[in-house]
Amino acid sequence: MSSSFGHAFRIHTFGESHGGGVGVTIDGCPPGISLSAEDIQFELDRRRPGQSEIVTPRKESDTCEILSGLHDGITLGTPICVIVRNKDQRPGAYDEMAVKYRPSHADYTYDAKFGIRAPSGGGRASARETIGRVAGAAVAKKVIASLCPDLEILAWVKSIHDLEAEVDPSTVTLADIESNIVRTADPLAAEKMIERIKEVRNDGNSIGGTVECVVRNCPPGLGEPVFDKLEAELAKAVMSLPATKGFEIGSGFAGTRMTGREHNDPFRMVDGKVRTTSNRSGGIQGGISNGENIVFRVGFKPTATIMTSQETVTSSGENTELKGRGRHDACVLPRAVPMVDAMAALVICDHLLRQRGQCGSV
Amino acid sequence: MSSSFGHAFRIHTFGESHGGGVGVTIDGCPPGISLSAEDIQFELDRRRPGQSEIVTPRKESDTCEILSGLHDGITLGTPICVIVRNKDQRPGAYDEMAVKYRPSHADYTYDAKFGIRAPSGGGRASARETIGRVAGAAVAKKVIASLCPDLEILAWVKSIHDLEAEVDPSTVTLADIESNIVRTADPLAAEKMIERIKEVRNDGNSIGGTVECVVRNCPPGLGEPVFDKLEAELAKAVMSLPATKGFEIGSGFAGTRMTGREHNDPFRMVDGKVRTTSNRSGGIQGGISNGENIVFRVGFKPTATIMTSQETVTSSGENTELKGRGRHDACVLPRAVPMVDAMAALVICDHLLRQRGQCGSV
Amino acid sequence: MSSSFGHAFRIHTFGESHGGGVGVTIDGCPPGISLSAEDIQFELDRRRPGQSEIVTPRKESDTCEILSGLHDGITLGTPICVIVRNKDQRPGAYDEMAVKYRPSHADYTYDAKFGIRAPSGGGRASARETIGRVAGAAVAKKVIASLCPDLEILAWVKSIHDLEAEVDPSTVTLADIESNIVRTADPLAAEKMIERIKEVRNDGNSIGGTVECVVRNCPPGLGEPVFDKLEAELAKAVMSLPATKGFEIGSGFAGTRMTGREHNDPFRMVDGKVRTTSNRSGGIQGGISNGENIVFRVGFKPTATIMTSQETVTSSGENTELKGRGRHDACVLPRAVPMVDAMAALVICDHLLRQRGQCGSV
Amino acid sequence: MSSSFGHAFRIHTFGESHGGGVGVTIDGCPPGISLSAEDIQFELDRRRPGQSEIVTPRKESDTCEILSGLHDGITLGTPICVIVRNKDQRPGAYDEMAVKYRPSHADYTYDAKFGIRAPSGGGRASARETIGRVAGAAVAKKVIASLCPDLEILAWVKSIHDLEAEVDPSTVTLADIESNIVRTADPLAAEKMIERIKEVRNDGNSIGGTVECVVRNCPPGLGEPVFDKLEAELAKAVMSLPATKGFEIGSGFAGTRMTGREHNDPFRMVDGKVRTTSNRSGGIQGGISNGENIVFRVGFKPTATIMTSQETVTSSGENTELKGRGRHDACVLPRAVPMVDAMAALVICDHLLRQRGQCGSV
Repeated sequence: MSSSFGHAFRIHTFGESHGGGVGVTIDGCPPGISLSAEDIQFELDRRRPGQSEIVTPRKESDTCEILSGLHDGITLGTPICVIVRNKDQRPGAYDEMAVKYRPSHADYTYDAKFGIRAPSGGGRASARETIGRVAGAAVAKKVIASLCPDLEILAWVKSIHDLEAEVDPSTVTLADIESNIVRTADPLAAEKMIERIKEVRNDGNSIGGTVECVVRNCPPGLGEPVFDKLEAELAKAVMSLPATKGFEIGSGFAGTRMTGREHNDPFRMVDGKVRTTSNRSGGIQGGISNGENIVFRVGFKPTATIMTSQETVTSSGENTELKGRGRHDACVLPRAVPMVDAMAALVICDHLLRQRGQCGSV
Repeated sequence: MSSSFGHAFRIHTFGESHGGGVGVTIDGCPPGISLSAEDIQFELDRRRPGQSEIVTPRKESDTCEILSGLHDGITLGTPICVIVRNKDQRPGAYDEMAVKYRPSHADYTYDAKFGIRAPSGGGRASARETIGRVAGAAVAKKVIASLCPDLEILAWVKSIHDLEAEVDPSTVTLADIESNIVRTADPLAAEKMIERIKEVRNDGNSIGGTVECVVRNCPPGLGEPVFDKLEAELAKAVMSLPATKGFEIGSGFAGTRMTGREHNDPFRMVDGKVRTTSNRSGGIQGGISNGENIVFRVGFKPTATIMTSQETVTSSGENTELKGRGRHDACVLPRAVPMVDAMAALVICDHLLRQRGQCGSV
Repeated sequence: MSSSFGHAFRIHTFGESHGGGVGVTIDGCPPGISLSAEDIQFELDRRRPGQSEIVTPRKESDTCEILSGLHDGITLGTPICVIVRNKDQRPGAYDEMAVKYRPSHADYTYDAKFGIRAPSGGGRASARETIGRVAGAAVAKKVIASLCPDLEILAWVKSIHDLEAEVDPSTVTLADIESNIVRTADPLAAEKMIERIKEVRNDGNSIGGTVECVVRNCPPGLGEPVFDKLEAELAKAVMSLPATKGFEIGSGFAGTRMTGREHNDPFRMVDGKVRTTSNRSGGIQGGISNGENIVFRVGFKPTATIMTSQETVTSSGENTELKGRGRHDACVLPRAVPMVDAMAALVICDHLLRQRGQCGSV
Repeated sequence: MSSSFGHAFRIHTFGESHGGGVGVTIDGCPPGISLSAEDIQFELDRRRPGQSEIVTPRKESDTCEILSGLHDGITLGTPICVIVRNKDQRPGAYDEMAVKYRPSHADYTYDAKFGIRAPSGGGRASARETIGRVAGAAVAKKVIASLCPDLEILAWVKSIHDLEAEVDPSTVTLADIESNIVRTADPLAAEKMIERIKEVRNDGNSIGGTVECVVRNCPPGLGEPVFDKLEAELAKAVMSLPATKGFEIGSGFAGTRMTGREHNDPFRMVDGKVRTTSNRSGGIQGGISNGENIVFRVGFKPTATIMTSQETVTSSGENTELKGRGRHDACVLPRAVPMVDAMAALVICDHLLRQRGQCGSV
């Protein structure tokens, strides 16, 4: 369903880029979890505009308010509604967009689907929509921490344009990632990436890249045999983020060029546990977690808004041209990092509760 | 939910590789659609074992029976149950598997999740599980044909190991694809691929590859703004197939290395329709189809079963070795083709009905 | 799922009686529907406290705000979030409730389920929770009006305590119902009912009653053959309202004492339409609407809060006594009327869209 | 969704009265539960035709086959498909029905909804459809027994026509119920009821009645605060059975004529447990079980098929007459008993797993 995600732990998001506000209702949350607006704000601050010199200067404090589901800072087991008001709206900035379809944006397809669209700022197709996801995931992370204290979910920029970072999924920390504004844990690469983003922005152009994500200390047994394989759920989760073009797990597309002898992960007993001595499976086998690191990558296209005149058409069917204006990210990757780890947290939390429901423990 | 897929047009599959049988119940199918067992059998024959010299010689005729939902060859609008009996079972062939976890298979993870598993043939993790999907998709294709007669869904082998085929998504036909047993529409590549599969099989090894899929003449407006973006649904659909490691749409991961100027798809009016002059979006913008070809690729790993001794552990926690036995595909790609187009058909059919429900037309 | 209702047209509600606020997100709403906050406020005003001398004097203006899903007063097809702030909170009034379980309330069961509860005002079990439903239904009514302009949904008080009203479901109007504060369309009965409520309230006691509801001009064909029979959906809808004890449709329980000869509804052609000459079926046959008036009744128990000392226990397991305090309805029936018609509207709207999705028209 | 029921423990049914067969797929079943075809057959035999002299003589052995989800008599946690072949089909017997709508049956409404229907035997509207429910519930009962060994679900005939049985929900046993063919636990009433059914049948007429059901030793905490209140789920469950006209729980409609002082259930500590000294709540408060007996009643109308000429219309819109033929129950109540306890078991099992998923224990 359009704006709902998850089965046992599920979120329902709402809100356009320019309107009263955006937010989320979280249903199915276990009771008895400590939760505060600060927990959510911490994650929202990682995704908000204006946080650094390489992201869009749009000024939104993105301050959240929890409307329900809590008593004295403890979850009640009832729906938790979180809202964030929209502030820095400049409807006038989008007048041209009301009649001209921005190339590689969703203006035309929304009109084709609904016969109507919010002409300012992309409406529901705006990256602003992800606020609800990130807020919901902040709650998911609290639930995960209470059920699996050792479980960690971390994402970072793996590449920007043709610049690749070297990051070890087994050891990387949140501090490493947050130590630079581009959110990669490779300081040298970070410098080059920041420079590249600035260059591209000054040229009125844009670039894409990839985010890598790891789930560490995930208990074996999460995920389902058929349609709700854990990798399928993760794929859907991240491919539902704006601007994504690809998903791969473990060996990924490179694995398609290996032989079975090269690709298979041998099992060995280590400290009384079943472990694999390599991890081309990416922590998931047959759709179910095997206890190894779950490692996946997500590709993001270059931002569609560029400061160049481009061919397009009007909503009344005439050829025309359009030049991007307004405040935009020349590269969405730094802000995509918290969106990717958010989606992973939503999937993991949901499957923890599903596993407990069907099989009795996690 | 584990074995259900789709929202308005939805399938529920069941069945293990070795047991009474496998099948599917299709719910939400529109009434008044002409349907026969032959329609379904045609698709099942494309995925069944023993169909050619390069797939597993396991002998299963995979003959389907429609138990319900039809009257005189017309759908009633009620659930359509299709079953396929299991025939060529050799439980003895799997004795060793009952105690040793096959590397890169789902034996261990099923035990970790459920505390029990069907020890013969992989149970629900077997490729045999896909029979229900393909049968369901055969019905979906009939529904699509009745609603959008021009809509075509075609998949083919794009690469095997390091061999790549040249296929034009705009012009390829089912006849082209089915003209060779590897199911690629590039005759020269097909020959090399077949040779490679035989070599690898004779060596007791296995290989992977990629399948490409196109949806042509899809009406604009399918897909939903947020979590159920059309590409997210497609990603989940194909990443839920056995052995998949990656999904990409349109420009895919290559698109992450482009700039916005290179990547954006300009709009132009053509014959009174809004069209794009390039298609790096892959037919979907903001999660919603734009009327261009929907083009995506899926990566499949090399088959996990190889005829080589490999390190593994027993279910009681001892290190041991295991050598693959039994009848297996050295390369799943030829049989993966009908699985991929099946999953695409399920997604498209579901979204056609959803669009009609919410917005009144397709 | 706990706080979601509907399948194609679906609402997600949130909010406790005492906290930031309550509300609803409506997902799956068709685009292009004219909608204003006034449309919603009209329905909320019918259910709010303090509206007349026979309902609770709790002062809540229940002013709604639409946060999303609209552009210039037209639905966008995206989620519509509506919030209502809580105002007249007196947490102190509930100190005793924090430790003593109110008889026939949900205090004990919430503790048993969640291990925690909002101690003031009943939390999610408060009638205040129904604001989200009524707001969602206000939108449903607009959708229904756009698809089926002649369709009418009306509910009224059929009985209070042992006082029964005579109301003709075929002819009753909203004006008739709203012409008295008890919301029955029988003026003589209304007078007696109002008097009875006042007597009971002055005695610190409470009473229940029944609400009857009709759906007129419902197109034939709504509802589904098996689990989602239209009467089953209506039953769930109204039995999920606070304080309900029973549901019956058409002939209802009285029908169980008739013979088939007495009970069957003969078919006749009338003005080229298939009609029944009696309506003991209550407008639904085999779970599907037949075009006749859908008529059902809902039983509400006497309000649990009474101004009498009652035996109860504390949350720490000691026998004690508790006397009701605070502001309460001595009879919920007048305010239950808009809740019942709201639930009917949600069911009908959902099934209109489901029917259009599967069968192509309504 | 039409033919799916349940959320965590969910069934998908299929099958028409006359066709290949009917059945169910059970998804979400916990692994490790002992299960055999005999477990299911026991329940099916309680609902099958031809079981006694007061039910339809249609001869169906209703022998079930389990196609999947088991290994050595233990559930695998994967979908369990159960099929029952149709045997005693007499399509010729229904020729007249193909053109004339049977009064108070679903012939007309199926045509109105789908534009097509299975003309023989009522298709999906046949009581035969309940086989899938009863088979699914047989599995649910095994799951319940493994999680809550003391929990009991029993249903019996409470009334037939104007004959009422005296049965104590607290003490009645399955043996009491099954001690007579009408399935009431009051031997004197049973005799009169059997006689009445025979009289009515010999007269070519039919009668209805009520079934009462109790859930004993249900743990407190099952059910959800808002839409999925336990009584709402039960109401939907039983109102989705064929021929039902009403549902009431605890004090039911009689409770609407009581005052709060008479109706409220005082709490007392008994053996260290919170108990109520009366049970007008019917074991559920605020939608959540309180540990007392859950007691509800369901009204069934007189069977629509009667051996009398009745006014009706043809599918082409002409007035005509129709006289019932074929083999039918003059009173569905004896066979409705296992259907009602089946639906209760499905609801309870689902909520046990949901409670374990969200709150960690049951």
